[in-house]
Amino acid sequence: MKTDADAHQRMVEKRKAGFEKKKAAATKEKGLLIVHTGTGKGKSSAAFGMGLRIVGHGMQLGVVQFIKGALHTAERDLFSRFDNCRFLTMGEGYTWNTQNREADIATARQGWEAALEMLNSGDYDMLILDELNIVLKYDYLPLDEVLAALAARPANLHVVITGRHAPQALIDAADLVTEMKLVKHPYREQGIKAQAGVEF
Amino acid sequence: MKTDADAHQRMVEKRKAGFEKKKAAATKEKGLLIVHTGTGKGKSSAAFGMGLRIVGHGMQLGVVQFIKGALHTAERDLFSRFDNCRFLTMGEGYTWNTQNREADIATARQGWEAALEMLNSGDYDMLILDELNIVLKYDYLPLDEVLAALAARPANLHVVITGRHAPQALIDAADLVTEMKLVKHPYREQGIKAQAGVEF
Repeated sequence: MKTDADAHQRMVEKRKAGFEKKKAAATKEKGLLIVHTGTGKGKSSAAFGMGLRIVGHGMQLGVVQFIKGALHTAERDLFSRFDNCRFLTMGEGYTWNTQNREADIATARQGWEAALEMLNSGDYDMLILDELNIVLKYDYLPLDEVLAALAARPANLHVVITGRHAPQALIDAADLVTEMKLVKHPYREQGIKAQAGVEF
Repeated sequence: MKTDADAHQRMVEKRKAGFEKKKAAATKEKGLLIVHTGTGKGKSSAAFGMGLRIVGHGMQLGVVQFIKGALHTAERDLFSRFDNCRFLTMGEGYTWNTQNREADIATARQGWEAALEMLNSGDYDMLILDELNIVLKYDYLPLDEVLAALAARPANLHVVITGRHAPQALIDAADLVTEMKLVKHPYREQGIKAQAGVEF
């Protein structure tokens, strides 16, 4: 069908022109504050996908995992192979297994002190603060303190913050926010158990 | 504040009990059809996070990348290091750079034939069909043919399909669907250019 093919070609040309125009208008370079939130899957995995690219480019990646177990062993092992990645795992299991709020607050503070040091060091190109949103949601850390530190970070440092329930003030401060939205989940609807590769 | 701490402890105990109950009810094991869609970022990265776990567990991963360039070089290089991963890149650039619909259809068919072979071989634990949704969106492949092949695959094979605009019939057929939703994007709103690690 000639007409269809012509229409398609006009569409791709228009789309390409739009893409090029948008690209030409984008000239600024700065460290981005990136947030992955929502109740769907893939928030941490997508952050670590970006982290892998940083590492692949020979740039410096820092990771603070605020909740142990939130990142899968296979991913953690992978990052540990690279010299240009510093990986810290804080926390003693998900908070709903820890029967003590004061201990959780102390653990969150320990993670945050490590993150602050990396944030201010000037040594990193990207910092992933995995599951920090959860820590903020439970008020384990003062939101104002975290926002102030993020705002005062080196100008070219990308920061990626993951976890469900990102506070609105953090979303307001961010440059790039993606919500991972749960559309369907086999656990809830079909009684399917956790399987290697998919869940761990 | 004692009362707050008590309330928190009750909440974590209740949450843990709910989690354990749900986990006990989930006993089935089967290959999942997983879809990552939406206009936000992280669809492919989150799929490749799962792929890394498969590879990390010593299981077999197959990848067909339907649109060249959709996956970042750093990620592609990473997968090429592993023996238990077969990685195929089909397509000659994003479709909006290809000025010929018939060529795109032929390219899509080539990718699909490769995917079909992997799908039916019984050699894989997970297959990632990266950007297949786009190919379906443009009607480069007949949706019915794709759905029938997915339904007839080996029972324990996980398939992960990525790309914006997943067809509703695919969502209906899927076990796990996550929509990556764009909340804020620095390109569009701030004129910030593509930066290493974040975008490529």
